[in-house]
Parts: sequence; C-alpha cells; structure tokens
Amino acid sequence: MPITAEQQAEIDAQRAAPQPTLRATSAGMEAHLYKAIPVLDHGFVRVIDYMGDDAAICQAARVSYGKGTKSVSNDEGLIRYLMRHWHSTPFEMCEIKLHVKLPVFVARQWIRHRTANVNEYSARYSILDREFYIPAPEHLAAQSVVNNQGRGDALTGQEAARVLDILKTDANRAYDHYEAMISEDGQQGLARELARMNLPANIYTQWYWKVDLHNLFHFLRLRADAHAQYEIRVYADAICSVVADWVPAAYRAFEDYRLGGLTLSGKAVDCLRRMLKGETVTQETSGMSAREWREFNEALEA
Amino acid sequence: MPITAEQQAEIDAQRAAPQPTLRATSAGMEAHLYKAIPVLDHGFVRVIDYMGDDAAICQAARVSYGKGTKSVSNDEGLIRYLMRHWHSTPFEMCEIKLHVKLPVFVARQWIRHRTANVNEYSARYSILDREFYIPAPEHLAAQSVVNNQGRGDALTGQEAARVLDILKTDANRAYDHYEAMISEDGQQGLARELARMNLPANIYTQWYWKVDLHNLFHFLRLRADAHAQYEIRVYADAICSVVADWVPAAYRAFEDYRLGGLTLSGKAVDCLRRMLKGETVTQETSGMSAREWREFNEALEA
Amino acid sequence: MPITAEQQAEIDAQRAAPQPTLRATSAGMEAHLYKAIPVLDHGFVRVIDYMGDDAAICQAARVSYGKGTKSVSNDEGLIRYLMRHWHSTPFEMCEIKLHVKLPVFVARQWIRHRTANVNEYSARYSILDREFYIPAPEHLAAQSVVNNQGRGDALTGQEAARVLDILKTDANRAYDHYEAMISEDGQQGLARELARMNLPANIYTQWYWKVDLHNLFHFLRLRADAHAQYEIRVYADAICSVVADWVPAAYRAFEDYRLGGLTLSGKAVDCLRRMLKGETVTQETSGMSAREWREFNEALEA
Amino acid sequence: MPITAEQQAEIDAQRAAPQPTLRATSAGMEAHLYKAIPVLDHGFVRVIDYMGDDAAICQAARVSYGKGTKSVSNDEGLIRYLMRHWHSTPFEMCEIKLHVKLPVFVARQWIRHRTANVNEYSARYSILDREFYIPAPEHLAAQSVVNNQGRGDALTGQEAARVLDILKTDANRAYDHYEAMISEDGQQGLARELARMNLPANIYTQWYWKVDLHNLFHFLRLRADAHAQYEIRVYADAICSVVADWVPAAYRAFEDYRLGGLTLSGKAVDCLRRMLKGETVTQETSGMSAREWREFNEALEA
Repeated sequence: MPITAEQQAEIDAQRAAPQPTLRATSAGMEAHLYKAIPVLDHGFVRVIDYMGDDAAICQAARVSYGKGTKSVSNDEGLIRYLMRHWHSTPFEMCEIKLHVKLPVFVARQWIRHRTANVNEYSARYSILDREFYIPAPEHLAAQSVVNNQGRGDALTGQEAARVLDILKTDANRAYDHYEAMISEDGQQGLARELARMNLPANIYTQWYWKVDLHNLFHFLRLRADAHAQYEIRVYADAICSVVADWVPAAYRAFEDYRLGGLTLSGKAVDCLRRMLKGETVTQETSGMSAREWREFNEALEA
Repeated sequence: MPITAEQQAEIDAQRAAPQPTLRATSAGMEAHLYKAIPVLDHGFVRVIDYMGDDAAICQAARVSYGKGTKSVSNDEGLIRYLMRHWHSTPFEMCEIKLHVKLPVFVARQWIRHRTANVNEYSARYSILDREFYIPAPEHLAAQSVVNNQGRGDALTGQEAARVLDILKTDANRAYDHYEAMISEDGQQGLARELARMNLPANIYTQWYWKVDLHNLFHFLRLRADAHAQYEIRVYADAICSVVADWVPAAYRAFEDYRLGGLTLSGKAVDCLRRMLKGETVTQETSGMSAREWREFNEALEA
Repeated sequence: MPITAEQQAEIDAQRAAPQPTLRATSAGMEAHLYKAIPVLDHGFVRVIDYMGDDAAICQAARVSYGKGTKSVSNDEGLIRYLMRHWHSTPFEMCEIKLHVKLPVFVARQWIRHRTANVNEYSARYSILDREFYIPAPEHLAAQSVVNNQGRGDALTGQEAARVLDILKTDANRAYDHYEAMISEDGQQGLARELARMNLPANIYTQWYWKVDLHNLFHFLRLRADAHAQYEIRVYADAICSVVADWVPAAYRAFEDYRLGGLTLSGKAVDCLRRMLKGETVTQETSGMSAREWREFNEALEA
Repeated sequence: MPITAEQQAEIDAQRAAPQPTLRATSAGMEAHLYKAIPVLDHGFVRVIDYMGDDAAICQAARVSYGKGTKSVSNDEGLIRYLMRHWHSTPFEMCEIKLHVKLPVFVARQWIRHRTANVNEYSARYSILDREFYIPAPEHLAAQSVVNNQGRGDALTGQEAARVLDILKTDANRAYDHYEAMISEDGQQGLARELARMNLPANIYTQWYWKVDLHNLFHFLRLRADAHAQYEIRVYADAICSVVADWVPAAYRAFEDYRLGGLTLSGKAVDCLRRMLKGETVTQETSGMSAREWREFNEALEA
C-alpha cells in the first residue's frame, strides 16, 4: 500500500488548485503531478515539479530570445542531432523533481549517481515505518550460474517458501526489536541514530530526488537496462513512462540512440565492414576475445 | 541598448499567454519572467524559468507528502536554521534558469563556478554582434595602490579620455577586421572559428545559465561581495533583486548569514572572548599576523 | 579485528618496495601508506595514494613553473590567506585515495557527500563477511531529550544489556539466514543481489574513496563536528590525523578557520559591536530568536 | 617559444631530485614529468603530477587489499570489460594534473568541461605576456561551405596574406595599448582588471588543470575527434600521447571502444541486421533521415 488515505487527501489538495504561470508547461506532466505511480509492494514514484519541455531544449541550443521554435518537426530533428552527437548541455536545461519511496538496498544503488540533488527521510531524527520489500514469488530468483552479478530462474517449492518465510520473519522481528529499543516506556530508550542499525536493507526509505534531463537519461540508460537489478529497473521503467509524457521528442531520441542503440568497438566495426563485403568472419579472424565475440553476435542477432 | 524592438516583441509574446499549472508558483517571479533587467551598457539578465519556492525548501527538508507547511513563520524559522547550520541540500531543491548577456571577460570569471548548466552562443557557428562594453567614466578606475587585485579611484582628465578612445577605437577596428576576414564577398572568407580570435574581451556574448539555489547563493556571496570586480558585481546585484522576489525567506536568511555575516578564525574568537571580558588586546597579544589583525578590526568596526 | 594476517602480509609487501619518483612527496604520508588505522570494532581507514603537498597548493595558486615556493613562511601565509578568503581551487589541486571499512549506516551518511569518487564492494557480485558493528558500552547512548537529532548519556544496567543482546543476536541470525538462503547445497540458492536485503545496517562494507582536499575539508568540517554522529565522527577524526601529517600548513589553517572558527550572522555581528562598546545586549534587544541567542552565547563562552 | 631558459632551468631542477615513494608509479609518466610538450606556436602541455596506473583501476574495481593484480593479461581483460560496459568509477581512481599554456579562445572551449579542477593565471592580479596565437599558413582555413560549424581548405595568396597581417597587427596594437593604459609612468594607470578587456582572444593564458581519467577520456573523445576545432585538437592529441604512456591498457581500451568505436541508433542496428541477411537497404526503406543515412554509410565505409 504505497499511499495512505491521509496522504491521498494531501495529494488531492495539491491537484485541486491550478495557478496561472508564464513558464513553459508540459500538459503530459501536469497530468502526472503529485500522483503516485506504485512500484514494488510499498514503493512509488511521484513527480513533484519539473522545469522545461522539448522546446526549451531547442531554445537553449539556439540561445534564442523567444521560444526558439521554428516548427515542431525542426525541433525534433534538432533534438535527434543533439542526441546523436553527444551534445549534452541543452538537455541539462530541463529538470525534474521526484518523491520516491524505495527499499534501502535500492537506494544504495541509486545514490551512486552523484549528479543529482537528494533529501532523504532522516532515521536519526524520525522513526521509520514498518514497511519491508518482500519479493513477489516470480521475482524470488536464484543466483545466475553464468553471471556472478545476475540472477536466474525463480525459486520454487519449499526453497521459495523457506526464503519468503525468512525474509518476512526476520524483518518483523528486527522491527519489533527496533521499537523495543527506542521505546521510552519504563526505560531511557536507545538513540534513534543507533537503533536504526538493527533494520535490514529491505526496509523502505523515501527521498526527494532532483536531476536534470541529461543526467536522468544517463541514469535510465544504466538502470532501465536488461542487466540492471530488477528492483531498481522497475523504478527506472516508471520514470521512463513519465519522461515520455514530459519531453516526447527527447524521449524518442533517447530510446532510439541510447536504449535501443549499440556501441561497437573499432574491432567490431572492422569486422562489420568485412562482413558487409561478404567475408565470413569467425572469432579467430575477428581479433576479439571469446566473450567480446559472443556479445557482438548477440547484439546483431537480437 | 540591451534589447531590440524585435526581441521585445518576442518577450511580449511570451508574457501574453499564461497557462494553468499545478506546480509551486512564485508570484514575485512570474512578474520577472522573460523581462530583461539591463546591466552595464549592453548587457542584461532575464529569468527564463524557475522551479520551487520557499515552501519547497521546507517540504524537501521534511520529506513530506503535501506542501509540508505548518505556517509561514515556522517555515521562516526552519529556513534560518538550515542556513545557519550549513544544510545545503534543501536549497538545492530550487532551480533558476537565466538568459544573460555579458562581456567575455565577465563570462570568463563567471564560468569558474562549475556547478551550473550553461549553453553559450557559439562563435564557431554564428557571427557575433558589434557590441562592446565601454566603462562609464565613473567606473574607469585606476589600479589600486594597496591591493594588487583591485582598483582605486576613477581616472580623470586626459588619461581618462585617452583610455576611452583606445577602448572604443580598438574594439571597432577589431570588429571591422573581423567582418572583413569572414566576408565571402570576392574571397573565400576565413572560418568563423578562427576569425573570432581577433575580437577583444569586452565584446558581448550571451548564454543560458541554470543553477540551483544553493549554488546560486555561493556564487552571489562571492560575486555580490565588495571585493568582486565591479563588472560582475552588477550582474550579481541584479540577480539578488530577483532572488529576493522569488524566495523571500531564503533570501533574508542568506542576507543575514552570508552577505552580512562574518566568519572568524579560532584565534579571532579567542581574542573576542578576551575583549568581551574587558581585556585590551593588541596585534602583538592577538596571535594574528598584521594583515589578519587589520581585517579583524575592520570587520568589527564596519 | 580490522585486518587479517593475510591482508597484513599484502600490506607489508606494498610497503617493502619504494620506487623513485619525481612527483611531490610528503614524508608524513609515506609513513601512513597502506597501513590500517583501526576505527570502531572492525573498521579502518587506509591511505592508498595521494597527490600534492602544501607547496603544490601554493604552486597552483601562483600558476608558477617551478615549485613556486619562495619560503616556507611565505607559503604558510599564502595558505592562510586562501583559506580565510574562501579561495577553494588551490586546495582542489591535492587529492587523496582511501580504503575504508565501515558499517552500512555510516556509509549511507558518508555517501551524501557527492563530490568524491567511490568504488564499493559489491554485494550483488560477492558474499559479505560476518562482521557487524556492536557499540562499546560507553557509546550505547540514549535518545537526547533536548535534540531530536542527537543522543544523550549511555544506557546502563539491564537496558544496556538488553540492547546489546538484541543487536548481537539479530545480526547473527540475519547472517545465518543470509548464508542459508544463498547456499547452493541441496538447493538452487537465492541470488546474492536479493539475499543481501536481509542484512542489517550495522554490517560492514568497504570502499575506495577518492576526494580532493577542498572537498575533504568540507566533509571533515561537517563530520568531525561535535554534532556529527559518533560513529562517523571517529572516521573523520582518523582522517584529520592523516591530513595533519600530509599537508601540515593547510591543516593548521583549516583547524583555525573552519574547525575552530565561527560564522556569525549580520545580527550577531551587530550585537557584538554594541557589546564591545560596552552596551549590555539581551535577547530582547538582540533581534535574534531565543534559539539563535542561546547558540550565540554558547559560541562566545565556549 | 613555449619555454624560456629560466623556466627550463626550473624544470631541470624539478627533474633532478627523485624521491623514494611507496605509491603506485608509472615509468612512462615519470619520463614526462615537468617537461613541456610544445603545442601551437607558443603553447604547451606539461604533466605536473599523476595518481594511479592500470593496476590501480583494477584494484579499485575489485576493492582489494593488495595490488589486486592476478596477472597483466587479466588486468587488461578487466579494463576492456569495464570500458565496454560503461563502468566509469574505476577509471575515476586515476588522476592527472597538467600545466597548460593555451590561447584564450581555446581555453573558453576547454573550460566547458566542468568536472575538473582549474587554477588560471589571473589577469586581474598580474600582467599578461605579449604572446598571441597566429595560425600557420596551412591552418588558416576558410569557412566550410557544407558545415556551419567547421572549416574548409586553407586560404591562399593575397587573402591569406591579408588575414595574417590583420591578426599580427591588431594583436600587437592591442598589446601596445594595453601596456600604455596600465603604465604608471606619468599617469595613474588603468586597473589591470579593466585593461585586459582590450586584449584579443588569441592571447595566451595558462592554467593548472587536474582531472580524473574517466572525465579526461570524455574530454579526449570529444576534443581529439575529427570534428573538434584544430586548435584544441592538437592539445587533445598531445594529452593522448601522455595517457598512452601513463595507463597503456586503459588507453588501448579507450582507443578501441571510444575513439575508434561507433554508436548506432536502434534504427541503424535494424538496418544492419537486414543488410547482413543480404537485403539491400536504401534510405527510403531505412527509416532514417537523409542526414542520418549519410552519416551511417560514411561510418561503415570509413
């Protein structure tokens, strides 16, 4: 249950009173504002604010006085050009602010992206809620046998049941003990900043996260990727759906050049040229290692 | 003349059509949007966009669901607390985007502040305008005799006249030659990316500059300071007037703690304590160097 | 036990073979290299590499060709001037790389300082060790009754015993279950990236952390402060002792102007001036809130 | 003449006294230290300091205690893997500090890369030297007729002579007037911070520039590219030659995956797959615009 009735009432209040503004507005984003997109069992992503739209990217690229738009198709062409040639600064002219509720182990991956602004709920100051991420059965995956940093098929039967039982029981016991330690009922009560150390990494935290569009695209390229851990990928997917509504042309260019694109090494380009001329290239004649050769072929066959 | 009639028409068009938004709005900033605040002889500062307001700072500090405001006076107290204790992240939740026209030598100082986003008018791609900063007579200052990095009184008489004549004549000749070199009339025409090297540092450039409020305050503390070069200080002053209208409570806290504040060394604090107990402290008994002692006394007497 | 015999052998090997270099070297830092300074019950700080010394700060400030040093006392004066006037870029010319072992809840505070480079041990890829932070009895503090974000005296008697028992028992049970879930003995074994979610925040992690001296000073000012949580302050203290050996003049300036310094608001400066003239100022006549007035007086009496 | 006899003597002094160090050293970089690599007519690049080597990249990626090296070939494979999969943080563990002398218009492009540390020679404080970049005849290029942001063939004959004459005469006159304005001989003398505004953008400045290897690679990918302006590309080329000696394995990976690599859009990958199956794809059936189709074919034929 990502949102309580009380929180929903606050959200409704925020959505009830539109104000006039002279700033660039995005109709797609106005529809998203403040609403919570549910992610995992207790998490969410909420858009709190945004700055700029597709036209603002072009306006900055042209350093123009007015809206800088000659036509919508011109703008889309310019945006594709900027994306193709790695011109990052115009995309930095758009900004988004999100309120995110997420498990601590996801937050720890997320925060590695440093070019963003963050205000996290403080467990030194406040008491955390009893909310833990417990994977759905289909996401209770085994360790991958081919990739040290990956997962295989879902566990089944008794093993799955044992794991779920451990996760639920340990989380609740840890939280019971957290409450018992900070209680001031008949005792002094342990400092919150210490008591939190007993809580496992699947407890939920929340933060305000603000980032520009260029750095957001970098985050999404890595975290919406098939190799990202599922539990962060679902957040990235939710954000992708928001961005597609916010800056549709920029998102389409991002999809084509980054999410759906492919970066080849010089060796790989050389092989491609030979293959296009009709030569049969093998790993032995490619100059690539076995692993690179496999990745190269998978990319072309996918 | 910072703005042409054509540019003014574009600005008027942008101000003509308010849109409804659910985002936080600041009435003070809506009044500024797109208008040019003139700075120096041909420069300006224009607000293009903004994100957040005083309440947004508090909302992020509290990581709250709704507006997070209990009362305006509570908010002001919280903002002063955050400023006093160097809590920077809530101020990073506000963002401003400016369009600035400024001389190149000012731009070179400005860009040293790296935590901002910039799109500058490209003199590789486009032709620069014939606009140069020529100081007003009262700002045509002599080199300081006490401070290697400062200026003294204004030049007068023949010396002032000679300098103004040099600046005007050299700028115009350089621009004439710039035009002559890139002309494709009866010749190939030198590449723009090369021809620009002939232009002096008082030519005007322009850029879109986007920064969060915390980093903007850092910029303003250094550049609205009495020791900053006059030609960048006037830009900082113009921006200060904008920020005071945008986030009044945050600006008041900034004025009190940063612009009007004072940072003392441990040695200086020790002297102060002794002085407050009635001891007469001299440079010899202060433990400070002559320069530090002078700066300490100036700060207390100012 | 922060370091095993095997690790110590690796450290000894690294310290056994000095190489000639033409770079700036710091004798104080050479003595520290690779050695582990123990922190908390299982943690440490190790210097892995460093760049620059006091002279390098001056050399960059002067943009000079040679060592840029006129004399050691000149250098110290310049460094104090740079620190006093917030000239940060020369301090950015020094860099340090540390290997740190620390509890996860400390790592979560630490990582909020974004202007640094980090490589953390991956619990997606590798299996974490059974090492947890258990506070020493004198640091098992109660929640502060005056400060929501602080701690009071140490717990005593049965309450202390109960807390210690909970922390130890829960940590070990969580680790037993972590091992049971990832075991591939007679079962598939849960993916490591999922199993880690059962581990509490007092488990130890480790990382390589690289930062420039300016940003390190900012970190130390906040984290070596009396208001910082004890468990991160001991890391900051250990790093302070290293920096004092690395760049002694810069560290002395930092101690005087930042750690031992005081920042006063404009209102406070105004009160001071009146007090130095003999006026008796009270909270009512100070213009400050009760809280600001108390903090002001504490600072002057300390 | 990039280096005077006096400066050379300072450099020789710095190279004369190797010190023992326990840090990672790179023999290739020790040979470069302090020496000036000449660039353009008066510029240079000098390595002042460095941190880390190829092994340090692997050590950080593995968060290991010792050198972390199993074998040189293992290290090279790991480095290629990290580069291929955009793992940037291990490359951030290496750092380089350069002293660069360069024309102001090149410095203005360079500084747009913000993730670096810079200390520039101050023309507020000091007097600039009479040194200007004057292009060699073969680099006195015409504006490109196909690309607004590019250059074509070299100018010839009278046009070339006229341009060279303008550049030389204007630069020297501007400098004569700069000297005349700041002179304190029989007059007050204009403040240096104002007088500099008369100097053109081909005057040389200098700075200390410090950057980590990841961000340096990003800089080099953009600035060593064939589309970069020649006058900055020669600096990037000089730095490439240094990096190849410093971290040979990382540089080889960078060359293969970034400098010699190719990024394709999703549309382009789709076309490639069809072409490899024997289909004849034209612009009409490719889904690409004319410009993208041309760039795609150029990349495959190059």
